[in-house]
Order: sequence, then structure tokens, then C-alpha cells
Amino acid sequence: MRNIKLTIAYDGTNYHGFQEQRGTGLVTVQEVLEKCLYRLAGREIKVTGAGRTDAGVHARGQVVNFNACGWNIPTERIVLALNGMLPADIAALKAEDVEPQFHARFSALAKTYRYTIYNSRIPSPFWRLYSYFVPRPLDVEAMARAAKKLEGTHDFAAFQAAGSPVKNTVRTLYSVDVCREGEELIHLIFRGNGFLYNMVRIMVGTLVEVGLGKREPDDIPDILASRDRTRAGPTAPPGGLCLERVEY
Amino acid sequence: MRNIKLTIAYDGTNYHGFQEQRGTGLVTVQEVLEKCLYRLAGREIKVTGAGRTDAGVHARGQVVNFNACGWNIPTERIVLALNGMLPADIAALKAEDVEPQFHARFSALAKTYRYTIYNSRIPSPFWRLYSYFVPRPLDVEAMARAAKKLEGTHDFAAFQAAGSPVKNTVRTLYSVDVCREGEELIHLIFRGNGFLYNMVRIMVGTLVEVGLGKREPDDIPDILASRDRTRAGPTAPPGGLCLERVEY
Repeated sequence: MRNIKLTIAYDGTNYHGFQEQRGTGLVTVQEVLEKCLYRLAGREIKVTGAGRTDAGVHARGQVVNFNACGWNIPTERIVLALNGMLPADIAALKAEDVEPQFHARFSALAKTYRYTIYNSRIPSPFWRLYSYFVPRPLDVEAMARAAKKLEGTHDFAAFQAAGSPVKNTVRTLYSVDVCREGEELIHLIFRGNGFLYNMVRIMVGTLVEVGLGKREPDDIPDILASRDRTRAGPTAPPGGLCLERVEY
Repeated sequence: MRNIKLTIAYDGTNYHGFQEQRGTGLVTVQEVLEKCLYRLAGREIKVTGAGRTDAGVHARGQVVNFNACGWNIPTERIVLALNGMLPADIAALKAEDVEPQFHARFSALAKTYRYTIYNSRIPSPFWRLYSYFVPRPLDVEAMARAAKKLEGTHDFAAFQAAGSPVKNTVRTLYSVDVCREGEELIHLIFRGNGFLYNMVRIMVGTLVEVGLGKREPDDIPDILASRDRTRAGPTAPPGGLCLERVEY
């Protein structure tokens, strides 16, 4: 086995998420990547991603691994070869040889997601696909205080999409940071050991309600304790979300 | 007459430029804006733009004016009303009452265009629509020296699209600045009293050849003196170009 770790970035706007959806006819990042690998390597190559991203969600540091056995290409040429074939909304950033037991999902120690809010009375055409437009003023200090209450090891069942089959809903958030960039942008940065389905977007929807004054930072512990999805806020839209980094 | 000056921003990716193209079936920013004004005002409103932008070219500060006579809306409500109806890739930024003789094109004293280059071995999915991807290293110092030689009042015939009907090709560039942002971005900022068709994109194509070492900064005066389009560089792609500001 020749195990390759590949870091990629993509604009998720035109994809139905990262993960292959067999038989649905929907185009995913994984399928496009595997088609390019097939054309370059001359044989089928299946990739394993560090994490799903949903339709419209972006990535600046998604990681996949695949077995390049029999593909006669030096590892340092893989990025250039792929970028010559990938569509412009997907880019290969880095390819590395890794030990056979490396697994993009199971070996991951931490993931970092960034969620970007465009907070202005006037929307921006340039941020429309990469942010959540919130026209009313947000109290960023209150959001930051609420964010701190999400940090640590908790049962995040209340922050998981309803109907999700996952049983163990305990996860650890190492940090949740809220910061402004310029006048309009607010970034929420979540670093944790794992994330439930829609967990970041539900946390953001809840923090935005705090920012609007509809909830208090002190409501967060009660929502966590309830384990009840209906107690948390709405699911924020996908375009603001970006998988920034996976650590191993 | 009730003369309104309206400042707008748009992502030009999905438009065939700013200006109306009657009978072509191609969607332009002007047509979309006029349709929204028609629906809001209940009568046809024609707008006059400060400048054409080509297909794929963006704007952060395009200016139009129109006669709002008979449209019963306070000027301070126009921006909000328009943004409630415009598609997400066009935004109204500011509406002002101006004197009847104000004309978005003829009253303009200066325009500023920004051209953005993404200079890295690896393309960025997020900059693909808003920059010109140049994978080979650029000598930004040489580009800046060449840029300075474009400043001033010159006959820019060599930097006009071939076959253009414009007779007087003398224009004044008040400043041409080249600056880096972070590792990958290079911005070229052109401020002048007027621009010929494709003039910025041809200047950029020429400056990129300087950056690649194919030309010297000292070639610029000769190209200007030649008045010959074939002596200048290629026309850089539209996505990197943005109309930043119009001054009156």
C-alpha cells in the first residue's frame, strides 16, 4: 500500500457536499476528485475524507487519504497534476506520504471550523456565498460570552440535527472564539475533537439569537442539559461554514 | 425632475456587463436594476451609469443616476427598498438627492479601478472569480516601476482594444499603484480621469509581462509612443477587475 494524505480546498457552492451520494445524480466533491484521480492514475482510486461537509459548505483544509499503489507518479508531483485537471472551484494544496495505518477520519485529533457572518444593514454581493447575512446589529460581546459556555466536554445532543442516528453525542470543544474583522465580518471559530451532524450550524444559529438579544449567554448550559434539539436555535445557512483545518 | 445618485456594488460573474444590450437576450446589471426600479416605482425608470463594465467585471462603487420624479418614496428608503428586490449579486449602497444637472458619466472627475492578481503555484477556489491566477512568480518591484511610467497624461491608443471607434485617446492617469496583500495577492490600482475600452486590462496584461521578466519597465514609454495595440501585452481576464470608486 502507498498511502497518500492529500489536503484540498473547495468552494462548496456548486456541490452537494463532500461525500459521494451513490445513485442520486448529485455532484459531490468526492466524486469529482475520484474522477480526476481515475484519469490520472488509470485505475479507480477511492478516497476517504476527514469529514463530510454539507451542500454549500466550503473547505480550506479538508484532508483525504487514498491508496496510490500502482500509480507511477512522485508524491511531489501529485498536487500539480491534480490542479491541472480539477475544476477551478476545487484545489489540491498538499500531498504527503503517510504510514499505512493513517486514516483521514479515524486518525484526526481535532478539526477547526470557521463560520462567517456578514453583519451590516447592506448586503455584500462578494460575501453572499461565503457568509450568513444578518442585517440587524449583533452584540458580539454577548456572543463571545455564550461561546465560552460551549467550550469543554458536553453532551451536545441539543445541537444535533433532529433524527440523527448517532448514539454517543458527547464531544469536546477545545475552543470557541468570536472575533470581528473590519466593520462587517464576524468569525466564529470552533476547534474540537469531533462534531455532530449540523452541530456547528446549530451552535451558530443559537449564538446569533444571543447576539440579537433573544437569549442570554446563561441559557447555553440549560440548552446543553436539556439534550433537546427544539431548545437550541435554528440551523444557520451552509454558505458561512468552512472546514479550515484537520489536525493529526 | 428629481435626480437621484445611486451607488451600487455587484459581482459581475453572472452578467454580460453593466450596460443594457437591447435585443441580445443577454442579462446586464442595468437591465436588472431597471426592472427592480420599475416594479418599485410603478413606471419605467432609465438609469445612466458612470461607466460600462464588461462581462465578468465587478464593481464596489459603480454610480448611476435616474429621474425619480413621480416615485413616491423618501430618498433614505430607496436603498432598503432596492435591496429587498435585487438579486444577491447586486446591492444598492447609497442613494442621494443631487442637482438636476448631475450626470453619472459626464460629471465624473475620476474613476478608480482595482485589478487583483492571485500569484501562487496553487490556485485558490475562493479567488477564482475575483482575480487573475498567475502561477509563476511575479517581480512586483519591476511591475511597480513600470506602473509609474503609465502615470500622467498620455495618448493611450496602444492600450485600447483594437477596432475601438474612440478618436481622442489622450487620458490622464493620476496614479497607478501596485501593492501586495499577504502572500498571494497583488493589487494594481488605477485612478484616472477616464479609461479607454479594455485599457485597464491591457495595462495589466503588459505589467504582468514585466513581472514575468518578458519586458522591462523602460519599454512602457516606447509602447505609449507607438500608439500600436500590437506592441502592448495581452488583455488580462475580466474577473480580476473591479470598479472601486467614481469621484465627482
